[in-house]
Amino acid sequence: MSAIRYELIKTDKQTGARLGILHTPHGSYETPMFMPVGTLATVKTMSPEELKEIGAGVILSNTYHLWLRPGHDIVKEAGGLHQFMNWDQAILTDSGGFQVFSLSEFRKIEEEGVHFRNHLNGDKLFLSPEISMEVQNALGSDIMMAFDECPPYPAEYDYMKKSVERTSRWAERCLKAHKRPKDQGLFGIVQGGEYEDLRKQSAEDLVSLDFPGYAVGGLSVGEPKETMNRMLEFTTPLLPADKPRYLMGVGSPDSLIDGAIRGIDMFDCVLPTRIARNGTVMTSSGRLVVKNAKYARDFCPLDEHCDCYTCRNYSRAYIRHLIHTNEILGFRLCTYHNLHFLIQLMERVRQAIREDCLMDFREQFFEQYGFNKPNAKNF
Amino acid sequence: MSAIRYELIKTDKQTGARLGILHTPHGSYETPMFMPVGTLATVKTMSPEELKEIGAGVILSNTYHLWLRPGHDIVKEAGGLHQFMNWDQAILTDSGGFQVFSLSEFRKIEEEGVHFRNHLNGDKLFLSPEISMEVQNALGSDIMMAFDECPPYPAEYDYMKKSVERTSRWAERCLKAHKRPKDQGLFGIVQGGEYEDLRKQSAEDLVSLDFPGYAVGGLSVGEPKETMNRMLEFTTPLLPADKPRYLMGVGSPDSLIDGAIRGIDMFDCVLPTRIARNGTVMTSSGRLVVKNAKYARDFCPLDEHCDCYTCRNYSRAYIRHLIHTNEILGFRLCTYHNLHFLIQLMERVRQAIREDCLMDFREQFFEQYGFNKPNAKNF
Ligand SMILES: [Zn+2]
Ligand SMILES: [Zn+2]
Repeated sequence: MSAIRYELIKTDKQTGARLGILHTPHGSYETPMFMPVGTLATVKTMSPEELKEIGAGVILSNTYHLWLRPGHDIVKEAGGLHQFMNWDQAILTDSGGFQVFSLSEFRKIEEEGVHFRNHLNGDKLFLSPEISMEVQNALGSDIMMAFDECPPYPAEYDYMKKSVERTSRWAERCLKAHKRPKDQGLFGIVQGGEYEDLRKQSAEDLVSLDFPGYAVGGLSVGEPKETMNRMLEFTTPLLPADKPRYLMGVGSPDSLIDGAIRGIDMFDCVLPTRIARNGTVMTSSGRLVVKNAKYARDFCPLDEHCDCYTCRNYSRAYIRHLIHTNEILGFRLCTYHNLHFLIQLMERVRQAIREDCLMDFREQFFEQYGFNKPNAKNF
Repeated sequence: MSAIRYELIKTDKQTGARLGILHTPHGSYETPMFMPVGTLATVKTMSPEELKEIGAGVILSNTYHLWLRPGHDIVKEAGGLHQFMNWDQAILTDSGGFQVFSLSEFRKIEEEGVHFRNHLNGDKLFLSPEISMEVQNALGSDIMMAFDECPPYPAEYDYMKKSVERTSRWAERCLKAHKRPKDQGLFGIVQGGEYEDLRKQSAEDLVSLDFPGYAVGGLSVGEPKETMNRMLEFTTPLLPADKPRYLMGVGSPDSLIDGAIRGIDMFDCVLPTRIARNGTVMTSSGRLVVKNAKYARDFCPLDEHCDCYTCRNYSRAYIRHLIHTNEILGFRLCTYHNLHFLIQLMERVRQAIREDCLMDFREQFFEQYGFNKPNAKNF
C-alpha cells in the first residue's frame, strides 16, 4: 500500500469541490488544506507548538535549500526531517526543481539533469531526478515531489512540448530511484503551461505511471488568474478522483477558494509568512498594512472578527510599533495571524462543501474581502 | 504606603546575601532576581507567555527608547505599558540617563538637564529629571528610576564629585516631579564611580530622600570585576536593609552570584538576549558558541543538564543550522535557553541562601562553569 492515501468524503453540489482526508504516515488531514512553508526546516518565526495551535496539518519544506544547508546527510543523521525540526505531523518536500529554475541565474538543462549555480556562493551544482530522490529519501518527508522542469511564463509551444516530454521521462526515473515507497509517497507534477493539449499529454503520461498523488505545476508563475483557473478546470478532470491534487505555490485567499472549486485538495505558499514579515496581514475585510503610520494609535486588533492569539492579545498600535522597530515579536504575531487566517479560511471552505454552498461562500467572501472592488489587490 | 515594598526573609550565614520578596503593584517576586530586558516593550524574540513559562518575574523596559518609539503618549493612550505589551507582571523602567550618555555622540549637560541628539536621526533632544518622570509616569511602570548622570569610566575625581552632587539634586527634583507615587515606586541611583567617599556621599544624599529602593549605578561600565565587587562591598552597607537594592546592567553568571553575595537583590542585563541572537549560550559547563561549525553534527541539546523547552526538544545541530541561516526560531530557542539559565541560576542562589551555603555554591558553580580556568571568559 502506498504511504499516501486519499479518501474522498463528498463533493460540493454547487461546484464539484472535494471534501476529503489525506492519510499520511504522520497523521490524517482534512482537505482542501493549506500547507505553511518551512523552507529551511522551520516555518519562519513559528514554533511547532504554535503551528499546531493554529491548526496547521502538513507543512512544506524545500529540498533544494536543505540540500545546501544543513545538507541532507546531516538531516538524515538526525533521524530525518521530522526529528531534526521537532515536527511530528506530516511534511511535504518539493523536488528542488522550482528553485533551480527560479533562483539560479545560470543553468543548463540536459536529459540527465540540470547544471546550475548555487544561489549562495555561485558554486557549480547538478541536480537530477535521482539526486532529488536521494535527497528527499534522506529527508524522509511523507510526501515527495518528482523532479520536473518549471518553464518560464510565457514559453513557446515547441519548448513547452519538449519540456513536458522530458518531465515525463524524469518522472519515470524518479519512481525508479525512489527507495522508500512504503514510508514516503511520491507525487507526479503535471506541466504544460497554458497549452491544453500539453497539459493533457502530461496528465496522461503521469497518470499511466500511477503516482499516489498529483500536483499541478507551472501555474501561479505570472499568468493572469483567469488563465490559471482555466488551466485548472481543464487539468483536474484528467486526474484520478481517488488521488489527491496539489496546486503548488498558491496562497492568496481568492485563489485558494477558486482552486478548491476546481477540484484542488492541497495548496502551499510563502505568501502569508512572507507578507507578515513586512507588516502586512490578511483580514476578514481585506489586506491591512499594519506597519503604516495610520495605525500608530489604533488600539483595535488586526482583525475584529479573528479569535487568534494575536488578535486576542495585541493591538494594531503595538504590532505597528514592533514592525516599525524590527522587533521579532512583531513578525511572529503577524505570521501567526496570517497562517491562522488561511487555515481558518480552508476550514470554512470545507464547511461550505459539507453544506453544498461553496459558490455562495465564495460570493460572500469575495465581497467582504474586497475582491469585487475595481482595482482589487491580488491578496 | 509606597507602591514598592521589600520584605527581608533571611540572610545567608556564609555571605550575608539576602533572601527577600519584592512586593509590587503587579505581583510579588522572590529576590535575588534577574530581570530580562525588553528595550522596546518586548523582550527580544520572546512572547509574554514564554517569559512566564521561563519564570521571569519583573522585566525591564527602556524609557529613552519608548520615548522615541512609539512615544510615551501612545503607550499612555494604550492604557500604559502593561496593557500595550500584554504583560501583567511587574515592569521596571530606567530613566533614560544611561542611553543619553551611551548612545548619543553629542551631549551637553546643564543643571536643568541634558541636551543631546537622537541616536536614530540626529534630531536635537532634551531630557531632564522632570521629563524622565513625565515619561515614566505615562508608561506606568511599577518601578521607575531617578534621572542620573552616568559618567564614563574612568572619570576624574573632581568631575565625579560635581556629577554626584548634581545627580543628588536631580534625584530630589525627580521625587518632586513624580506624579503617581501610589502606583509607581521611584528608586534613587547611587553613583560615585570608584571613589569611596563619593559613593558614601551619594548614598547618604539619596537615603536622606527616603526612596522605596536604591540602585547602584555606574558599575559594569568597563572597570575590572574586582573594582565592581569592592565598590559593592563598600556601598550596600550604606543602604537601608528594608529597601531593595538593584545593580544595574549586570548579567554574567559570576557577577550575579558575586552581587548577591554583596547584598544585591535585583539585576538586569541585555547579555542573555543579546548573545543568544549571535548564537552564543550559557550552559552548566560554560559558554557555548552553537553557531560554530563544530556543532553541525552534534545532536545533543545545548545543555544536557537543562530541562528548558529548547533543551528538551532541539539539538545543537538544528539550532546551529537555524542560527547559520538567520532563522528567527534559532534566536528564539537560544534566547529562551539563556533566560532560563539565568533565572534558574537565581533560583539556585536563593536556595543556597535558604541553606546558608552561598559561598559553597559559588565555588561549585565557578568551577563547573569554568570561571576558575586561566583566561576564563567574562561569561
Ligand atoms: Zn488574528
Ligand atoms: Zn536549555
